Amino acid sequence: MRRFVIVGSKAKASGDFLLSDIPGTSGRLDVLLRGLRASLLISHGVRRDTVACLVLQGDPSRTVTVRVDGAAARYLRPDDRSLATIVKKALAVTPAASGFTELRAGISVAEDGLAAVAAELAGSTIYVLDERGEELRQRLPAATPADTTFVLGDHLGLDETTRTALERLGATTALRVGPQSLHTEDVIAIVHNELDRREAVT
Amino acid sequence: MRRFVIVGSKAKASGDFLLSDIPGTSGRLDVLLRGLRASLLISHGVRRDTVACLVLQGDPSRTVTVRVDGAAARYLRPDDRSLATIVKKALAVTPAASGFTELRAGISVAEDGLAAVAAELAGSTIYVLDERGEELRQRLPAATPADTTFVLGDHLGLDETTRTALERLGATTALRVGPQSLHTEDVIAIVHNELDRREAVT
Repeated sequence: MRRFVIVGSKAKASGDFLLSDIPGTSGRLDVLLRGLRASLLISHGVRRDTVACLVLQGDPSRTVTVRVDGAAARYLRPDDRSLATIVKKALAVTPAASGFTELRAGISVAEDGLAAVAAELAGSTIYVLDERGEELRQRLPAATPADTTFVLGDHLGLDETTRTALERLGATTALRVGPQSLHTEDVIAIVHNELDRREAVT
Repeated sequence: MRRFVIVGSKAKASGDFLLSDIPGTSGRLDVLLRGLRASLLISHGVRRDTVACLVLQGDPSRTVTVRVDGAAARYLRPDDRSLATIVKKALAVTPAASGFTELRAGISVAEDGLAAVAAELAGSTIYVLDERGEELRQRLPAATPADTTFVLGDHLGLDETTRTALERLGATTALRVGPQSLHTEDVIAIVHNELDRREAVT
């Protein structure tokens, strides 16, 4: 399986943003929503082998993670507003003290950020996506590990605290997807494409 | 320069869609807007070497093309809603009988669709992006032509009339970006990435 963990440094965990001004009122949740789309949606379908986690760490009081599992999720539409509505509903749920609480098929929410995701990463090969990393095409093993996780930031990138936490989880390799610094969703599209190509060959 | 021409088979040329329901009221303009973002925006910047043309052919009475030139455009934000607002304003302009009429720096509108774009394509190498095409990585020349145009469809792909018109313009090669059928914006991200890599080598 493929897992994309998108860390929103400013994204609010409260869900009290305006659908009519998502970028201005949510802490740039829009960046994460487009990353969610790129993670899960293909032409007329969903990537059933992929999970996307949005880590909302922009509130000082709490961090929340919304997880969308392509194997189970239904009725995902690609536009900012419908994805924002899903996240808004997820954030209205009070999650259990630990682990993910399911809102509807494939859509879950957890109190906490990377720590909540970490509980699911045993056995996963974890890469950080970063423009200062090594080249994806060269560095990814020819046979992609069965369970691979890619962690990336929002428009501000990953901060040092998050990087340190990721290293502790075993994410010691950073990958870049090319010479340009790109939007989160474009990075995800390029990673998927590289994995799709490798899987088509094997 | 790089040019992306995104043909919206159902996208309305009237601009009377609702910002609160872009997918449902515009003929899926949202697909084109995300393609516009992928064409022009990179992390904290605009691709100054790129032009995006949105061909809105979903109205029976008229076809309109909105062109955004990365060399001149300012204040482009990546979310669906702000890009929709730009297109709405462009569609409120009555274009001159021929050629593009500028609404504001870098943003122009023309009556007509591919015929309006065609006037600018002399000397450009034109590719159609299509999942049945040849492999991008193998087929693109090592040194990308100085002026390259990529034409792609919306969620419904390109119809036969459009394909025939494109062949007449010299677009005889179709390229695919990998084994999966992807969203328009992901295809654009992957094409840009391939060009970025080639330019970085030369």
